[in-house]
Amino acid sequence: MDSTLQKLNGILQSRKAEDPEKSYVASLYVKGMDKILQKVGEEAIEVIIAAKDNDRSQIIHETADLWFHTLVMLVQADLDADDVLKELERRLGTSGHNEKASRD
Amino acid sequence: MDSTLQKLNGILQSRKAEDPEKSYVASLYVKGMDKILQKVGEEAIEVIIAAKDNDRSQIIHETADLWFHTLVMLVQADLDADDVLKELERRLGTSGHNEKASRD
Amino acid sequence: MDSTLQKLNGILQSRKAEDPEKSYVASLYVKGMDKILQKVGEEAIEVIIAAKDNDRSQIIHETADLWFHTLVMLVQADLDADDVLKELERRLGTSGHNEKASRD
Amino acid sequence: MDSTLQKLNGILQSRKAEDPEKSYVASLYVKGMDKILQKVGEEAIEVIIAAKDNDRSQIIHETADLWFHTLVMLVQADLDADDVLKELERRLGTSGHNEKASRD
Repeated sequence: MDSTLQKLNGILQSRKAEDPEKSYVASLYVKGMDKILQKVGEEAIEVIIAAKDNDRSQIIHETADLWFHTLVMLVQADLDADDVLKELERRLGTSGHNEKASRD
Repeated sequence: MDSTLQKLNGILQSRKAEDPEKSYVASLYVKGMDKILQKVGEEAIEVIIAAKDNDRSQIIHETADLWFHTLVMLVQADLDADDVLKELERRLGTSGHNEKASRD
Repeated sequence: MDSTLQKLNGILQSRKAEDPEKSYVASLYVKGMDKILQKVGEEAIEVIIAAKDNDRSQIIHETADLWFHTLVMLVQADLDADDVLKELERRLGTSGHNEKASRD
Repeated sequence: MDSTLQKLNGILQSRKAEDPEKSYVASLYVKGMDKILQKVGEEAIEVIIAAKDNDRSQIIHETADLWFHTLVMLVQADLDADDVLKELERRLGTSGHNEKASRD
C-alpha cells in the first residue's frame, strides 16, 4: 500500500494536466521553480516561528505545508518522493554520528 | 508495514536515550530546539541552492537532509511524523485551489 | 550628515504614528513581529535566488528589500540602525579570521 | 565622510587580495557564492530566532552578522553597498503603501 507521501506525490503529478486557474498546484508549476522555492523557504520560516512559539498545532500545520511544497518542488524537478525516501532508507542502516551521512 | 518516515521517526525517538558524544541526533537534542531550527533553515536553503543549480542528485540529498531535520524537530517538540502525515491525509480529499488548505 | 540607513530608520520610526490602511510599514507594525520576520526571511530567500541567477539589478532590489525589512524589525524591537552600525564599527578594527567576531 | 557600511564595504573589497588562510572573508570568496549565500540564509534565520526570543543584544549581533554577509555577497557579485543605498535613497521620497516599491 502506498504511503501518504507517495499518494500525495501521485496527486501532485496529476495536477500538471490541470487548469492553473482552478488548481493551486498547477498555478505553482506555471509560475515556475523560483516561485516554488520561495514557498519552500517561506514554509521553512513558518515552521521555525511555530516551533519558537511551541505551538503544537501550528507546528503540525506548517510542517505539512513545508513537506507539501517540497513535494511540489520535486515534481517540478522531475523527481519523486521515492527518490528522497530511498535516500533516507539508505541512511537508516547507519548509526551513531554516521546517521547523518551529510556534508555540512 | 511502516513507511520510511515512520521507521525513521522511531529511530529518531530512540536516539533520545543515546550518548550525545556518539549520536549526531542525540547531540542535536542536547543542544536544543534553536540548534535544530538552525539546521532546518540551513537545509531549506541548501534545497533552494540545489534546485537553482538543477542538480538532481543534490536536490535528493538536500531534501533528505531537510526532511530528516524536520523529523528531529518534531521529536524535540514531542510530536510525530504521523501527526503531519495525518494532516496531509486530511488534505488529500480536497481539490482545486482548496487543495492547499493553508493560511498564507 | 545622516547616512541613508539612519535617514530611513527615522522615517520607519515615524510610520508608527501612521494609518495602517495608508502605510505599508504601519500595517506591518500592526500585524506584529511574526509577520515582519516572515518578510525578513522571504527577502533573504529572494536575495539568494537573485544571486544564484547572477541578476545584478535583482540582487540590488532584493538586498534593498532585505535591509529595509531588517530595519522595520529593529524598530519593532525598539532598536535602531545605529545599534547595529555601532556593532559593525566595533568589528572594523579587527582583522584576519577575527574580523567575523561571530559565534557560529 | 564615509558611512559605516561604505567603510566596511571598502575593507571587504580589500580582503580579495588577502590569504584565505588568514582572512575569514577571503576564505568565503574562495569557497564561492554558494557558501556566501548559505551564510546569508543562516544569519537571516539567526535574526529570526533572536527576535522570537526578544533578546535585544542577540538581535543586534545577528543583524550585524546578516548585514556583514550581505556585503560580502555584494562584493562577490561585483556590486557595492552604494548600489543598494542608492536604491533605498530612491525609495525615500515615496510614501504610504508606495514606500515599499517592491514586487511581492
